[in-house]
Amino acid sequence: MSDTMKAIVKTRPAPGLELISNPLPQIGPQDVLVKVLAASLCGTDMHIYEWNDWAQQRIRPPLVVGHEIHGEVVDRGALVTKPAVGARVSLESHVVCNVCQYCRTGRSHICEHTQIIGVDRDGGFAEYIAIPAQNTWVVPDDMPIEIAVLLENFGNAVHTAMWANISAKKVLITGCGPVGTMAVAVARATGAQAIYYRLEAARRMGADLTVNGHDDVVSIIREATHGEGVDVVLEMSGAPSALDQAFSLLKPGGQAVLLGLAPGPYTFDMNNHVIFKGASVHGVVGRRLWETWFQADSLLRTHAVDLTSVVTHRVKMDNFDEAYQIMLSGQSEKVVLRP
Amino acid sequence: MSDTMKAIVKTRPAPGLELISNPLPQIGPQDVLVKVLAASLCGTDMHIYEWNDWAQQRIRPPLVVGHEIHGEVVDRGALVTKPAVGARVSLESHVVCNVCQYCRTGRSHICEHTQIIGVDRDGGFAEYIAIPAQNTWVVPDDMPIEIAVLLENFGNAVHTAMWANISAKKVLITGCGPVGTMAVAVARATGAQAIYYRLEAARRMGADLTVNGHDDVVSIIREATHGEGVDVVLEMSGAPSALDQAFSLLKPGGQAVLLGLAPGPYTFDMNNHVIFKGASVHGVVGRRLWETWFQADSLLRTHAVDLTSVVTHRVKMDNFDEAYQIMLSGQSEKVVLRP
Amino acid sequence: MSDTMKAIVKTRPAPGLELISNPLPQIGPQDVLVKVLAASLCGTDMHIYEWNDWAQQRIRPPLVVGHEIHGEVVDRGALVTKPAVGARVSLESHVVCNVCQYCRTGRSHICEHTQIIGVDRDGGFAEYIAIPAQNTWVVPDDMPIEIAVLLENFGNAVHTAMWANISAKKVLITGCGPVGTMAVAVARATGAQAIYYRLEAARRMGADLTVNGHDDVVSIIREATHGEGVDVVLEMSGAPSALDQAFSLLKPGGQAVLLGLAPGPYTFDMNNHVIFKGASVHGVVGRRLWETWFQADSLLRTHAVDLTSVVTHRVKMDNFDEAYQIMLSGQSEKVVLRP
Amino acid sequence: MSDTMKAIVKTRPAPGLELISNPLPQIGPQDVLVKVLAASLCGTDMHIYEWNDWAQQRIRPPLVVGHEIHGEVVDRGALVTKPAVGARVSLESHVVCNVCQYCRTGRSHICEHTQIIGVDRDGGFAEYIAIPAQNTWVVPDDMPIEIAVLLENFGNAVHTAMWANISAKKVLITGCGPVGTMAVAVARATGAQAIYYRLEAARRMGADLTVNGHDDVVSIIREATHGEGVDVVLEMSGAPSALDQAFSLLKPGGQAVLLGLAPGPYTFDMNNHVIFKGASVHGVVGRRLWETWFQADSLLRTHAVDLTSVVTHRVKMDNFDEAYQIMLSGQSEKVVLRP
Repeated sequence: MSDTMKAIVKTRPAPGLELISNPLPQIGPQDVLVKVLAASLCGTDMHIYEWNDWAQQRIRPPLVVGHEIHGEVVDRGALVTKPAVGARVSLESHVVCNVCQYCRTGRSHICEHTQIIGVDRDGGFAEYIAIPAQNTWVVPDDMPIEIAVLLENFGNAVHTAMWANISAKKVLITGCGPVGTMAVAVARATGAQAIYYRLEAARRMGADLTVNGHDDVVSIIREATHGEGVDVVLEMSGAPSALDQAFSLLKPGGQAVLLGLAPGPYTFDMNNHVIFKGASVHGVVGRRLWETWFQADSLLRTHAVDLTSVVTHRVKMDNFDEAYQIMLSGQSEKVVLRP
Repeated sequence: MSDTMKAIVKTRPAPGLELISNPLPQIGPQDVLVKVLAASLCGTDMHIYEWNDWAQQRIRPPLVVGHEIHGEVVDRGALVTKPAVGARVSLESHVVCNVCQYCRTGRSHICEHTQIIGVDRDGGFAEYIAIPAQNTWVVPDDMPIEIAVLLENFGNAVHTAMWANISAKKVLITGCGPVGTMAVAVARATGAQAIYYRLEAARRMGADLTVNGHDDVVSIIREATHGEGVDVVLEMSGAPSALDQAFSLLKPGGQAVLLGLAPGPYTFDMNNHVIFKGASVHGVVGRRLWETWFQADSLLRTHAVDLTSVVTHRVKMDNFDEAYQIMLSGQSEKVVLRP
Repeated sequence: MSDTMKAIVKTRPAPGLELISNPLPQIGPQDVLVKVLAASLCGTDMHIYEWNDWAQQRIRPPLVVGHEIHGEVVDRGALVTKPAVGARVSLESHVVCNVCQYCRTGRSHICEHTQIIGVDRDGGFAEYIAIPAQNTWVVPDDMPIEIAVLLENFGNAVHTAMWANISAKKVLITGCGPVGTMAVAVARATGAQAIYYRLEAARRMGADLTVNGHDDVVSIIREATHGEGVDVVLEMSGAPSALDQAFSLLKPGGQAVLLGLAPGPYTFDMNNHVIFKGASVHGVVGRRLWETWFQADSLLRTHAVDLTSVVTHRVKMDNFDEAYQIMLSGQSEKVVLRP
Repeated sequence: MSDTMKAIVKTRPAPGLELISNPLPQIGPQDVLVKVLAASLCGTDMHIYEWNDWAQQRIRPPLVVGHEIHGEVVDRGALVTKPAVGARVSLESHVVCNVCQYCRTGRSHICEHTQIIGVDRDGGFAEYIAIPAQNTWVVPDDMPIEIAVLLENFGNAVHTAMWANISAKKVLITGCGPVGTMAVAVARATGAQAIYYRLEAARRMGADLTVNGHDDVVSIIREATHGEGVDVVLEMSGAPSALDQAFSLLKPGGQAVLLGLAPGPYTFDMNNHVIFKGASVHGVVGRRLWETWFQADSLLRTHAVDLTSVVTHRVKMDNFDEAYQIMLSGQSEKVVLRP
């Protein structure tokens, strides 16, 4: 192994990224060194690339970016017993402290010292990444790389869908990216009665009805539900208008699970959307550690969910700018970087 | 309508039943009169027929028997607004009081004044039955009679399966009758990861592995689960040996949901089966009123569950003895009486 | 009994009310006639009195107002078996249909045909009121009238507090009326670890710390919780500013239960208040039917909660305008009308 | 520090224990060395002392015994950041693996590789104990040693009581040792409506009614509950007869939480105790890691529970045989060993 590696780095507080040579990362006694086999791009990566307000406040250059990572363990610290060197692993992107009150009560996903790779510490758009051993999830030998690289993002979909009790319920999923598409598949596999989705592409994952965002979503879905509305909303878009439509369709006593982030605070009708309905709203962040990973693993191993075809584009890491441009065009589902 | 009707009646405290002529039942202001289109037989009916210990203590002849009933509303009391005359309905067999603490807190299934039709008050193995309007469930026009008649018993399977959180879980179903078979279908439709069942016949409903009761059930299923055991047990047999096997296979933190009734008290290893495992056990009686009916309805309307083929035998009411003999032979799934 | 009675009536679509003579109300076969012993005033009554926007859209004169009612059963319909004539009862103000999907699944509090007395049908600021027997709650003989009349409103506090799992939790209660004060008492009786409240008057009900709304609530409570914030928020004020403060103080993974109604839609920071925190929000309407009544009854019978002193003013029904003026002055807790 | 220490050791597979000189235990990079300030005796210690069947199968001499331990951190491994040297800590007795499926899903209390100190690895009836840093719970400076030493056992009471939703419920607690007494206090502090207990001594902790085991427990409590029975059973005795009484008193839909271990399998009436009632049974093992510790800490810090007077006897470690004899006499609550 060389002492240096190629890495995609936010080198200074400005738009854009650079492919540079970085020192090979050091591992501590509880860490592993992972050779990256594939990495995928997500909305957060776009914010960092474009250097929007959020990125300017959160990111401290220089930083290796990228948080959806799959690779192979090539070295490990003295105290690591699992995973073995040679294991193929996907990475949980939230590095948690294990000692705060949330970590100590089975709620590490809201750890008060969370560091996200590619955001708060060096990420994995690089040849190698050093990460705590507990952040690795060993995948089955026969899992294709292009499925394995999706696990982090798939976990968002699983976490969101598992919050609500979906069995035998009518479910509306709002949001246009891969996480929405994957949530359709999870809702189907976990027994939803009917699934309504705001995008044509979702039908192949098992949606009963897909609606174009430009249509009169509320009327169409209200009619499809015989005027009743839906029991569960899984909100992945963050668009206040989509959220408003979704809450209008939510039945009394219903559950809305929110993953999508809005651009900022917005006007919300708490009386009619939540209180008069006796409804519940849950915010979702990351993945339940590690319950979501077990659930995701189970859904894939048993072929209850099939993620083939979620990846639509592959780009060599050397041509990373092309990958970002494809994502920004809005014409892709998932774009994968390969070494 | 004639003033009398044919009915299958336990006329005296002894084995057997008689087909006799009974007065047409009277309805009160909140009742409906239902013309029976089909009725199915269940284990309880066998106990009453054979006049076992339980039956001798519970049944007060004369009594019209039968509690799994489907029919058409032909008359209704002055205060009834739903269902309409002419509606096809399946009957909830538990007549509840609406005023006890359980009824008033959404738990009518454990009403302290429950009367079961065909057990505590006249049942539906007859041309007509009078029953409170709230005990009727209107079925869709296109639901075949032989599906509609199963709803009461299907509800037991749904209630049991819905107690546990089955999504992405490994589930063992023990029990050899139609309710076990139907529970396999429900577990499949509501997202179980893997379903193990103790009967060959269950495979067509979606079980991943079926085991014959004579085989070494524990070893086979332990191997199939890579030594781990199962997350959820749905127990429909009431056989202490099956229950013992099932608890041996239950994982720590697992859930066992018990519907099957044992012949009496039996030796149970509470320490190892429940306490050391931090496991939970839930007893199931009847159906959640009326949540289970909504769930069952939803699973059938959307074709998530297909009950075609559960009914294996049809017998005219006049030949009721033949129906009981088929059931007692153990060679049937569901046996249906038709007028 | 006379054929007429005195009643406080919204006679026409304009501010104010009139005390007039009305026909004695008729009862149906499932109703009771209740002679009113006491009635209390609530914020909703003020809206109707002042004829604000909400009232103009919802209220259809002529209407007898008043929904917090305690009285004695003096007559009952042919089908009523409970309560007995002579029983003292407090009234559930939501008349529900018993047949919609919510009523049939233990969720009558969100019945799709709810009629509120004093709002959608004649209320109880009168000598008598006719109401379905199921809307009566029999109180113990030794319960003072001025406690019994509070049960409907106390039920709001109980319903709200029971939504969250309060045991051993830090709880912030926002809101300045009697329902907030009573919620403090419920939280104390059900095992809250610490209770923070925004009003001096609440200390006598068991709050650990009370904060004046003009103070820097967020700083004071953050310091009192050693920087952590609170596990549970019970929001009774409906004031967007109070709600904003409360959500700022809510810990990751926390629960916010909302009863207070805002004047309308407002700007809400869903990202920071709910999503990033993985928090849950529950809307509360009315009382769980009838679970809340059992809980409220239990808390009072066992003296776990003491509501003595919640009523601060008594006014004869003939002087109803005085009662409304006291309420509008903001200087009272509960104002009671007596015949 | 000397290289050796005094320790109470099961030196060979036979009844009795010996006070011997042992090497000072070594610590690994994630461990701490704790100087024992106090240790308390529990039923398990009696089994090991008397060398009963269970002990013969589980214990592998030589072994330092003792699992309820309080002490001061005097050294720590290289990777330990918390607790500080000098901190006073109580010990969680279950050493868990952090990597099995249970540990990784917030359920370490059922870790599949659990080692209990004093049972599966060296315990704390000694001058020092080496233990993973994560097994320490730092206590407030002003917490008396005789409260701090109870935390492990108090945690059993808290875990059991917190399984059920106790607020506004009638609770029966069976079991005669300190854990039962402490459960009474927890149930009181977390809002139970009424608490029934089978021992006179419990009244001071807040039980509403205590019943002597020789009395007709079922009749007395049935009468006290107006014939209804109880909503919740917390079972700490392990006596099949107590368990049978408790289940007889359990209401339909009730919850039984079982901590006490029976001498072996016993005859149980699953039909009447669980299934017909639609009841739930939960097995409890250890403490939720670390949720129970947070809850216990909260209950004590806020003085919601007062454990003063639970310790009834103090004995010097040199006289350990006397401590065991007091415990075996049945005349004590908690017996504490001091260095």
